[in-house]
Amino acid sequence: PLCLCWALGPAAASAPPNLLLLLMDDMGWGDLGAFGEPSKETPNLDQMASEGMLFLDFYTANPLCSPSRAALLTGRLPVRNGFYTTNAHARNAYTPQDIVGGIPDSELLLPELLKKAGYVSKIIGKWHLGHRPQFHPLKHGFDEWFGSPNCHFGPFDNRALPNIPVYYEDFKIDLKTGEANLTQIYLQEALDFISKQQASQQPFFLYWAIDATHAPVYASKHFLGTSQRGLYGDAVREIDDSIGKILKHLQKLGISENTFVFFTSDNGAALISAPKQGGSNGRFLCGKQTTFEGGMREPAIAWWPGHIPAGGVSRQLGNVMDLFTTSLSLAGLQPPSDRQIDGIDLLPAILQGKLIDRPIFYYRGDEMMAVRVGLYKAHYWTWSNSWEEYSKGIDFCPGQNVSGVTTHTQEEHTTLPLLFHLGRDPGEKYPLSFASDEYQGAMERISFVVQQHKATMVPGEPQLNVCDKAVMNWSPPGCEKLGKCLKPPKSDPKKCFWPH
Amino acid sequence: PLCLCWALGPAAASAPPNLLLLLMDDMGWGDLGAFGEPSKETPNLDQMASEGMLFLDFYTANPLCSPSRAALLTGRLPVRNGFYTTNAHARNAYTPQDIVGGIPDSELLLPELLKKAGYVSKIIGKWHLGHRPQFHPLKHGFDEWFGSPNCHFGPFDNRALPNIPVYYEDFKIDLKTGEANLTQIYLQEALDFISKQQASQQPFFLYWAIDATHAPVYASKHFLGTSQRGLYGDAVREIDDSIGKILKHLQKLGISENTFVFFTSDNGAALISAPKQGGSNGRFLCGKQTTFEGGMREPAIAWWPGHIPAGGVSRQLGNVMDLFTTSLSLAGLQPPSDRQIDGIDLLPAILQGKLIDRPIFYYRGDEMMAVRVGLYKAHYWTWSNSWEEYSKGIDFCPGQNVSGVTTHTQEEHTTLPLLFHLGRDPGEKYPLSFASDEYQGAMERISFVVQQHKATMVPGEPQLNVCDKAVMNWSPPGCEKLGKCLKPPKSDPKKCFWPH
Repeated sequence: PLCLCWALGPAAASAPPNLLLLLMDDMGWGDLGAFGEPSKETPNLDQMASEGMLFLDFYTANPLCSPSRAALLTGRLPVRNGFYTTNAHARNAYTPQDIVGGIPDSELLLPELLKKAGYVSKIIGKWHLGHRPQFHPLKHGFDEWFGSPNCHFGPFDNRALPNIPVYYEDFKIDLKTGEANLTQIYLQEALDFISKQQASQQPFFLYWAIDATHAPVYASKHFLGTSQRGLYGDAVREIDDSIGKILKHLQKLGISENTFVFFTSDNGAALISAPKQGGSNGRFLCGKQTTFEGGMREPAIAWWPGHIPAGGVSRQLGNVMDLFTTSLSLAGLQPPSDRQIDGIDLLPAILQGKLIDRPIFYYRGDEMMAVRVGLYKAHYWTWSNSWEEYSKGIDFCPGQNVSGVTTHTQEEHTTLPLLFHLGRDPGEKYPLSFASDEYQGAMERISFVVQQHKATMVPGEPQLNVCDKAVMNWSPPGCEKLGKCLKPPKSDPKKCFWPH
Repeated sequence: PLCLCWALGPAAASAPPNLLLLLMDDMGWGDLGAFGEPSKETPNLDQMASEGMLFLDFYTANPLCSPSRAALLTGRLPVRNGFYTTNAHARNAYTPQDIVGGIPDSELLLPELLKKAGYVSKIIGKWHLGHRPQFHPLKHGFDEWFGSPNCHFGPFDNRALPNIPVYYEDFKIDLKTGEANLTQIYLQEALDFISKQQASQQPFFLYWAIDATHAPVYASKHFLGTSQRGLYGDAVREIDDSIGKILKHLQKLGISENTFVFFTSDNGAALISAPKQGGSNGRFLCGKQTTFEGGMREPAIAWWPGHIPAGGVSRQLGNVMDLFTTSLSLAGLQPPSDRQIDGIDLLPAILQGKLIDRPIFYYRGDEMMAVRVGLYKAHYWTWSNSWEEYSKGIDFCPGQNVSGVTTHTQEEHTTLPLLFHLGRDPGEKYPLSFASDEYQGAMERISFVVQQHKATMVPGEPQLNVCDKAVMNWSPPGCEKLGKCLKPPKSDPKKCFWPH
């Protein structure tokens, strides 16, 4: 017989692209020039956007660091992967120093799966998925880890709440001036890793999870005082500069066309720390900790020269969980089929400009507070924080108060959800009239989506219910050398108290 | 003797550039993609910005249409040119249909002065500096006028409040659907005028003062329903499209390098009409009618290919009054020396990137409410609107409430002004502590600036004190033909009532 044989074309045969995920900490939608920050102090990120694709409707899976990061790396809602609490209704839980839980072994994390395609994975910066040894990144698929198990390397030198795994005094943040050179160290780690991997010819996944914009914010000496926006702006400028250097490094090494880069943040800006220690959510309502747009809509940029058309703007509804599925797709892998995956593959949106119809769910702990379908967002529950907290000055919506929306008691609207049109009203200020045809029509569709979601929801075992001071890092490895080991207290596990 | 003679170089010998001023009505800082509008629906304006210079700190002279426009065309604060009231303290006055006053003959308007340099001037759109014949544009320097004496051509067909000079029924706005083709007509007028002038070889000044974004907002059929932002967004999209066509027309005629184009708005978005009939001020506080940033900070773009470097971003504090002085400078003319001119020549900022130190004054009627010096803004008076109005649902700061800042009684802070740092806190949410060194240092400088300003201030004769229904357009020219002349009531001049 006549046999015709072709080799696979270069596209199919070529190695999968490197994956570089730039994850910001508490940076808000409104912190970048490209997203309308009035000082326009992010020239490198703005250029990244103009060379790549800007996502205007990109979300986190949770308005808080730990669950958001767990969702990103598992592709699953926190209520599925266990990064939530059932201690009280609709509470934000995370991984403070005394948390007993962490990411369960049963969860499959992105770097574990990428091994199948030969990737070498590194996390630089903040982990936050559990600080006890069994939860560490190297136990969950990462090959290299440079950073801290929790947020920051701090609280710095605090003997009552030890956090730091090794370096008690090596990485300081001067809380008075805000000076710290951590971003520079994280930058150098990234550049070194990229160089090393480029030489090794193996594809890499680099998860650059820096934390300079999380209070206490910091910047290195060179950037201190350079922003119109104060110390927070200095931190943003240093990050912007660093990202510019990383992208240029990829270009210099000639691997920019083989490296898929995505920039986003873990949750909205922490307005409670603003303006000196917190960022901006632009025109969106409230901030971190809430399920309003300011808590969960994120700045997002995809960059992959030669593949993503320059200057694109996408209205695709995206989510940090999509980075899991999209990364697998880029690596030529399928997501696990034995569990519910919430993330979708964004490549059709990124490479072909397609719009995939999918909802966004806004959870707070164990409760689905709101859902977005198309341009409509329905709130089934509203709550900013309690009157008790609010009266002590804890305010997640400073300068903003929308009657009946930014409520200080948990308000149930499950029978008649509060509905907003996010195109006309991105600030969630004008609920639609319950009697309007528009309300009826939109809610019909949304109710169906919510019903489907709830009918198939199997919550995971909650991991953030129990706290115990005995599990803190009293004697991290290396403490002997420094003569700084501390004696842990007796174990006394308790239900964690989550105030909001 | 040996005589050496040179001709003047081509730059000096060439004709002065055409001037094209694109003035929006009630469009806010946050309405353009380039300024962070979350739907990014202004590709032409965004491109204009990327080819020209974006101003992030550009202001109007007053948070209301008439005084703002009077200031733009005279280069003088309304309190000097008479476009204010003394009927009550700190009230916004303008030119409704029954106003007796208008722009005084003693004021020198930009088109009058440009005549000396051979310019032909045309206004297309909204005049709003007095509708009685002696106040009309053709009496104040314009050679051509196509548009309405007041806002819109409406209220359309309203016999109780006649407004329209000629066309009772020619220019309709369907108040139910928002359909009207006025922007298309204004666009065609602009294109025709530009073509005609280009053929005539005389330099032109075109003041394109359209009003589709002023409530009742409108768009032509082709644009209805095309925006994510509702009818308001449809109007913005049509304007964006029109401006794209105007700029392309200049390029096609080969005169873009000889036409200085400036885009801005007359005051902040009217949040009271939002979201269906009003725009957005981004993250700034409150809107039109107020002296918070949302009332007075404007989107602004300068475009002049071959002269203004592409993609520039200026932090120069600018003001609509500067367009007067800058235009004169471009025409090779000096501003009048017999009166105080508040506008400055922005050319050093635009062409050489210089930063000129100058304050911004925020007036409401007869009162200097606030002042900006550098990044600091001091409020000497605060007031959003009265409790009486607020309790009726009139809200200039919907969803925003900053305690002690968005006050509903007129609050005097002249001895201890409320101070904000607009870099760290563009939303005016966090007043600086009176006891801080920062407060003391900033206020020392600001107090000096205010003292200088007040010491040399000679208010003009207020033109907006008297109203009389008899002066309305009961029998505009042309009404006979249509059989639509109305009989005016007996003259009964009264103090105008300005509620806020």
